[in-house]
Amino acid sequence: MSPAQHQPDRPIAALLVPDILAMLSESPGDVAAETEEMHAADLADVVEAMPAERVSEFLRALPASRAAQVVEYLDEAIRTELLEHMSSVQAAEIISEMTPDDRADVLDQLEAETADEILSDLPDEARQETERLLQYEPDTAGGIMTTQFVSVPESTTIEAALGLVRVAARSGTRASMHAIYVVDADGRLVGVMSLRELVAAPEGTQVADTMVSELVSVAASADREEVARVTSEYDLVAIPVVDGFGRLAGVVTVDDVIDAMVEEQTEDVQRLGAVQPLDDPYFVSGFWDLARRRVGWLVLLFVGGIFTITAMDAYMRIIGQSLVLATFVPLIISSGGNTGSQSATLIIRALAVGDVAIRDALRVLRRELGQGLALGACLGGIGFTLVTFGFGQGARVGSVIALSLVLVVLVGTVVGSMLPLLLHRLGFDPAVASSPFVASIVDVTGIVVYFTVARYLLALT
Amino acid sequence: MSPAQHQPDRPIAALLVPDILAMLSESPGDVAAETEEMHAADLADVVEAMPAERVSEFLRALPASRAAQVVEYLDEAIRTELLEHMSSVQAAEIISEMTPDDRADVLDQLEAETADEILSDLPDEARQETERLLQYEPDTAGGIMTTQFVSVPESTTIEAALGLVRVAARSGTRASMHAIYVVDADGRLVGVMSLRELVAAPEGTQVADTMVSELVSVAASADREEVARVTSEYDLVAIPVVDGFGRLAGVVTVDDVIDAMVEEQTEDVQRLGAVQPLDDPYFVSGFWDLARRRVGWLVLLFVGGIFTITAMDAYMRIIGQSLVLATFVPLIISSGGNTGSQSATLIIRALAVGDVAIRDALRVLRRELGQGLALGACLGGIGFTLVTFGFGQGARVGSVIALSLVLVVLVGTVVGSMLPLLLHRLGFDPAVASSPFVASIVDVTGIVVYFTVARYLLALT
Repeated sequence: MSPAQHQPDRPIAALLVPDILAMLSESPGDVAAETEEMHAADLADVVEAMPAERVSEFLRALPASRAAQVVEYLDEAIRTELLEHMSSVQAAEIISEMTPDDRADVLDQLEAETADEILSDLPDEARQETERLLQYEPDTAGGIMTTQFVSVPESTTIEAALGLVRVAARSGTRASMHAIYVVDADGRLVGVMSLRELVAAPEGTQVADTMVSELVSVAASADREEVARVTSEYDLVAIPVVDGFGRLAGVVTVDDVIDAMVEEQTEDVQRLGAVQPLDDPYFVSGFWDLARRRVGWLVLLFVGGIFTITAMDAYMRIIGQSLVLATFVPLIISSGGNTGSQSATLIIRALAVGDVAIRDALRVLRRELGQGLALGACLGGIGFTLVTFGFGQGARVGSVIALSLVLVVLVGTVVGSMLPLLLHRLGFDPAVASSPFVASIVDVTGIVVYFTVARYLLALT
Repeated sequence: MSPAQHQPDRPIAALLVPDILAMLSESPGDVAAETEEMHAADLADVVEAMPAERVSEFLRALPASRAAQVVEYLDEAIRTELLEHMSSVQAAEIISEMTPDDRADVLDQLEAETADEILSDLPDEARQETERLLQYEPDTAGGIMTTQFVSVPESTTIEAALGLVRVAARSGTRASMHAIYVVDADGRLVGVMSLRELVAAPEGTQVADTMVSELVSVAASADREEVARVTSEYDLVAIPVVDGFGRLAGVVTVDDVIDAMVEEQTEDVQRLGAVQPLDDPYFVSGFWDLARRRVGWLVLLFVGGIFTITAMDAYMRIIGQSLVLATFVPLIISSGGNTGSQSATLIIRALAVGDVAIRDALRVLRRELGQGLALGACLGGIGFTLVTFGFGQGARVGSVIALSLVLVVLVGTVVGSMLPLLLHRLGFDPAVASSPFVASIVDVTGIVVYFTVARYLLALT
């Protein structure tokens, strides 16, 4: 990779594989030095393009700390596969070089048996630390925090603190040092300073004079979405995690916040599409696992469709009197469903980014009633023209279509906007109010509204 | 805010407003000192809860640099409103204290006339820098980068570099210093080191010995989504932006990357819901602006619905011979639409996170054909049982429903998965393949499939 330009890397990685494999066979001792200049993320791309049976050999040719970095950057599924087929001793050697949070993440994805074997081969300290982290739920602050951080007592002088940082940095620790945390005698977090502030602080003063005590932290049990929200709101690069006593338990770094955001987002989008969120990427998910995560909502919506059939069935006599009404059913109900999808999507996203809260329900309702009237009037107008003149059905059927559209669109905006708020209030993820779900509720209502309007305006019995 | 716990802040901010207003009337000189311990983000919440006419007065009571921070954290719409009603001199005073990228962002959101007035009141250097940044598109690396960063020539010694950093940090610059960039004599970016590496580097050596030259950078014209992808892939806290000559033009910091990710995500979700992305949060958007961004897709889908009517109309004779067929139309077409929504959502997200690319189209097609058969068989089975026994329509109508469901679901998975890939290939955002859009395409096909199957199996003419 040229120094000053980011390149799409997968094809390039694939090109490097033959050379690296040849070197591995002829002079494995040179592999480490020859690949030294490459970013670990790029080297991970090389590993992904390599035949699976050569990977262990390749990783053995690298220093363990470098191998650990490469393995961290591997695609989750490939990494899991690799570690499960490696000797537990080699796996433990690599994993012990990872940061504690990555160590826990990686083990969490392995089968319990493999994970236990590797765990028992880890050095004592690393094992205990990892076991502690494994107790936290993976989607909480505790589950994504690292326990490697730099903290200093509040009575330390600036020079001594800088000395501590220098020793820590030279020791090869992988602790993030963007922020230096200040603790009191009981280990309680009392302040924070950036490495920059430490470097710039006047000599001869104490850290307590320079540190910022207006600090933001999260509880170890906080949801990772909350961690992401706070990190983003306060523009942080690391956020301290405290236990129930206010003691510093760990630090969540911004790269893990970004990973959490991307995962949460994927879950939300999949829910919006009426798919139960996948654990793995699209192609990595097994065929039947994928089918299982789709069939649930499909069957539920299908069975819910019985209400639609029942509703249609109830109006068979009316359809018999005016067959043309059946023609417009899909148009009417899809207009309600489309408007409902819009409202649901807008409110789900507004809830996610904090623009709308439960207490705004009445304001949302008023606004969506207005939107429903405006959008319904617009579609109703087009519908009237289309049916009366375009399809030559006369003003009477045209009026049925127009009035039904206004009412159905109104139902769409109200159901679409209120359902996510209701789900949120009941403790569910509002993204469960997917477009298909909203549409299926609006369908039934739409049919009832349409035929009721038709019966009155066309004087059918 | 208590030091060791993050609190939901809006209600608390509202509680502080009366005290702060009283202080502002009685002893405005104390306001700065009394609010000094608060985080600027929290003070921004206080400003948002304050009567609009007191805000200018409050900001004047703070040092300009502090006022600038508070204004940066304000909600976009409130900030724009505020700056447009402030004297251009006061606005320029506050804006000149912002980082160059925030300065450009803020001015970009104002009306052109107001922005020009404020721009002309800025000090010369700040004005030129801002004008340069304003030339970049807001959704590119250039549009979100800051021009304040720390760079050192490659021949500098470690001590001299640390001295430069110390001077810069003490000067009160707001440059991010997580990374120190190393440039050659022509200003070309040749290396990078973290502040931590600088602090830990052995004394008496040169920065060229410690710096990492395997660095990742983006072009100023790179899309902000690309910037986010690279930042996340390489776990960076800042990413350098280079011009066409490889010269360091600016730096994108991770907080701006996160903001960009959230905005891009909001756009994607809104597109998925068939809404043209909003510029402002839900409640901030004007009523008619909101309606305008919804009506486009609604009308398009409605007019597209004419195909559905035409299709239905073409089968009127068949419906006339077997009225019960009309009853099941919504069930059949919504099953296709739902499956299509699932496929579209899965592929759109997989494209966004890089799990699937255009070149995977054939693999996606094979997989979705399989999914369509499996899911269709499942719904078909339920449908057959339901119609034959539940609704007592006999095995013949039951078979029509079952076979139609398999075929319609198959159409859903194929259209739903291929449409996003096609849109992407044509240079559109794949998220345009919203659930309503996919459903409306599948609707027409579903009707044709259903009545064709019915005609043959029921031997209708």
